[in-house]
Amino acid sequence: MIAPSVRAFLEAERAGVLSTIRPDGRARQSVVYFLLEGDHILVSTESKRGKAKDVERSGWASLCVMGREPPFPSVTVEGAAALRVNQIADHTARLFARISGDEPPELTDELLAGMDRVLLDVEIGRAYGASYLPAE
Amino acid sequence: MIAPSVRAFLEAERAGVLSTIRPDGRARQSVVYFLLEGDHILVSTESKRGKAKDVERSGWASLCVMGREPPFPSVTVEGAAALRVNQIADHTARLFARISGDEPPELTDELLAGMDRVLLDVEIGRAYGASYLPAE
Repeated sequence: MIAPSVRAFLEAERAGVLSTIRPDGRARQSVVYFLLEGDHILVSTESKRGKAKDVERSGWASLCVMGREPPFPSVTVEGAAALRVNQIADHTARLFARISGDEPPELTDELLAGMDRVLLDVEIGRAYGASYLPAE
Repeated sequence: MIAPSVRAFLEAERAGVLSTIRPDGRARQSVVYFLLEGDHILVSTESKRGKAKDVERSGWASLCVMGREPPFPSVTVEGAAALRVNQIADHTARLFARISGDEPPELTDELLAGMDRVLLDVEIGRAYGASYLPAE
């Protein structure tokens, strides 16, 4: 359901601005590294973080991804979101590799649980505001 | 009230991700060019845009600014927001010059009104999530 130009852009970029809804009804924004997996955006975070608590409470999140050079290509994707703690080792290892540029580290769900690491999983229900995306 | 390192970063960057609150209570995000003026973030938009209507309705907005290279320095600022339509020609001209890299264009409030152009003005009430900002 994601347009090919949007998918290609989300695969080429690796960081974006996540927005969640705080208890006061306003938006919390932070820069995150992400991985596109099918129609899901995956972000590694800690369960104690505000963004994680927002997702647990509201079941929703949005990610705006912006290219690095003018005219700043961008798109926003949003949808139902949840925290995952089981069978997250492989995706988390790929995400860490994407961040570091190194080989994926050896991870297990148990090791990640000990680090309080969870996967914030956004199912892309909608993409909007696509601007200046590279032509396919 | 903005820390000097945050101010320097906001002066060096010119685009960020604005978040406003939609009527459904979720976050709308889009890439905007901005100008820091004192403790205010100024963005030029059209009054018919969703972000403008969100600000009119909620009186609030947030901007997350992210540097272009790893480790992606960033900070989020937020606060009371309003639309301005009077005495906006000078700031809008400076903002357009910042976008284009050219000299500021000759603008008047009347000309901007004819283009439906307004200034979205966010008074920075809080800055958070400052990460990897260049040392002063």
